[in-house]
Amino acid sequence: MRAEIAEQPAVLAAAAADCTEARETGERLRRRPPRFVLLAARGTSDHAALYAKYLVEIALGVPAGLASPSTLTVYGARPDLRDVLLVAVSQSGGSPDLVETARRARARGARVLAVTNAPASELAAVDLHVDVKAGPERAVAATKSYTAELLALWLVVEAWRGGDPARAQGVAAQAAQHLERAGEVAALAEGLAGTDRLVVTARGYSYPTAREAALKLMETTYVSAHAFSGADLMHGPVAMVSRDLPVLAVAPAGAGGDALGPVLAALRERGAELTVFGAPGHRAPGEPGYTLRETDEDLSPVTDVIPLQLLALEAALARGLDPDSPRGLRKVTRTW
Amino acid sequence: MRAEIAEQPAVLAAAAADCTEARETGERLRRRPPRFVLLAARGTSDHAALYAKYLVEIALGVPAGLASPSTLTVYGARPDLRDVLLVAVSQSGGSPDLVETARRARARGARVLAVTNAPASELAAVDLHVDVKAGPERAVAATKSYTAELLALWLVVEAWRGGDPARAQGVAAQAAQHLERAGEVAALAEGLAGTDRLVVTARGYSYPTAREAALKLMETTYVSAHAFSGADLMHGPVAMVSRDLPVLAVAPAGAGGDALGPVLAALRERGAELTVFGAPGHRAPGEPGYTLRETDEDLSPVTDVIPLQLLALEAALARGLDPDSPRGLRKVTRTW
Repeated sequence: MRAEIAEQPAVLAAAAADCTEARETGERLRRRPPRFVLLAARGTSDHAALYAKYLVEIALGVPAGLASPSTLTVYGARPDLRDVLLVAVSQSGGSPDLVETARRARARGARVLAVTNAPASELAAVDLHVDVKAGPERAVAATKSYTAELLALWLVVEAWRGGDPARAQGVAAQAAQHLERAGEVAALAEGLAGTDRLVVTARGYSYPTAREAALKLMETTYVSAHAFSGADLMHGPVAMVSRDLPVLAVAPAGAGGDALGPVLAALRERGAELTVFGAPGHRAPGEPGYTLRETDEDLSPVTDVIPLQLLALEAALARGLDPDSPRGLRKVTRTW
Repeated sequence: MRAEIAEQPAVLAAAAADCTEARETGERLRRRPPRFVLLAARGTSDHAALYAKYLVEIALGVPAGLASPSTLTVYGARPDLRDVLLVAVSQSGGSPDLVETARRARARGARVLAVTNAPASELAAVDLHVDVKAGPERAVAATKSYTAELLALWLVVEAWRGGDPARAQGVAAQAAQHLERAGEVAALAEGLAGTDRLVVTARGYSYPTAREAALKLMETTYVSAHAFSGADLMHGPVAMVSRDLPVLAVAPAGAGGDALGPVLAALRERGAELTVFGAPGHRAPGEPGYTLRETDEDLSPVTDVIPLQLLALEAALARGLDPDSPRGLRKVTRTW
């Protein structure tokens, strides 16, 4: 896991430098855009799909939704999917319910774009495919395939909207900067050593980062790490927040971090044990945290997750756990 | 909260008997159906929206997605929403981000259906409105407005698909049966007294029930109650499940419960402390649980949640907490 986290600057640099496949895919979609986008994925890739949902809605103005694979695979729904693009995101390209969802969606009229780290997989054999080229991923807790999926999806959307793919040139250097700051993260991980539950919150583009951070922590440390959008947190779950429940917040510069501001204020008022991964303006004096340097907000999730991947790794090690052998997990999960 | 839980048979009976508004709304949508449905809600109502997503996809074959209000309200996205129906679900009809989402969606071409318990609210003043008529709800933890929202949404979809609204005639009696079994639930609540975290899982139509059960438990007992679809649970979070982490499962008769079968088997193999609210076939001998009698699977969420509402109530009381005064919550949450 540590080795694959460390590969991210190289993986992202290569993807940003040679993005022909993603660019051509985006240009094809630009020429014949769908009316709606559905996204299907599981686990870590589901958070990449959620990121893509924000990109599609905000940058493209195309309504989008996360598919519930069970409606097709368990209930045999027969939706009218003409004018729909189904985006299936999967590291392995092999989860049976995703393969089946893509197959049935095509049969119902959808075009399918598969974003995988496995160009020879069953899922990749669809209308449109983007290989995220993260290289073989062996750690059960996915890291480099996640950031590679995010960047691939961003590149597709950027080409689709007729934007400037060169904006992604800086992500590799940003990833490298996070790796150089691993010591800061290790100190924060020590602060989590005594807890068996915590909350992660964010809004907008950073919400997928919060969800992915929570999943990494669950996989490697077995804590109940519970992600909420800041708005959803205030609609009920905030009742469980007290001094004995650590809260991690992701609040980079931009509209999403700004919208989280009132939530951070409410959490501080409750005396929550808050750690902010965010822009300087969102951190409070004396509070533990990690400063995120400013970047384009739509691109920030590609690298903001790296200190949180490191946090999960270090928190596991601090507990004497082996992050490369999470109990009861295999690299490819087969669900229907 | 107890009084409002107990009102549910009467509320559901009245709604099933006089469903003119929901039926006429469904018939209007049948005459001019949208190509895509977006659903917007927060908190408890978000679980009613998720239930409606399954209904729309499975019973109607119309693709659907949950809206992320922040894309419109925080990022100012300008999506093309012609041919889209936005369904906004809100007990109070007053959450500013939902009102604003509905307003902006209309401006972008969507028709809006508001399902509220507040016919005089700002949200109700849209193209289509269904009043769920649950009566004033005072408990912070919503109960009767939730089941009333589920039934209203079911009635709209049933009329839309040209089905048989009379299928709902039995729900009031089923609700009453659950209330008579409150003693069974109180015994199960005692089993949760020592935990500060648990997992709730289900698949398909019952997944919203799992999410709503988790929210009720968070609101009233402050435990970290974490809901997962059975498939998502297996893609990572299952690593945190061990003998010290209680798991509640919702597995009524039908395809969703059947699809959860392999997940239940995997959880038992791990030695999870499992409590199944489900059909007799999904319960294991000697395991604590609660038997759900068979009903039409698409309608079962309307009443299956009642023993779980009672569980949250009883678990709070067993901890010496006041479920009518959850800390830090108000009845109407205002988020943007």
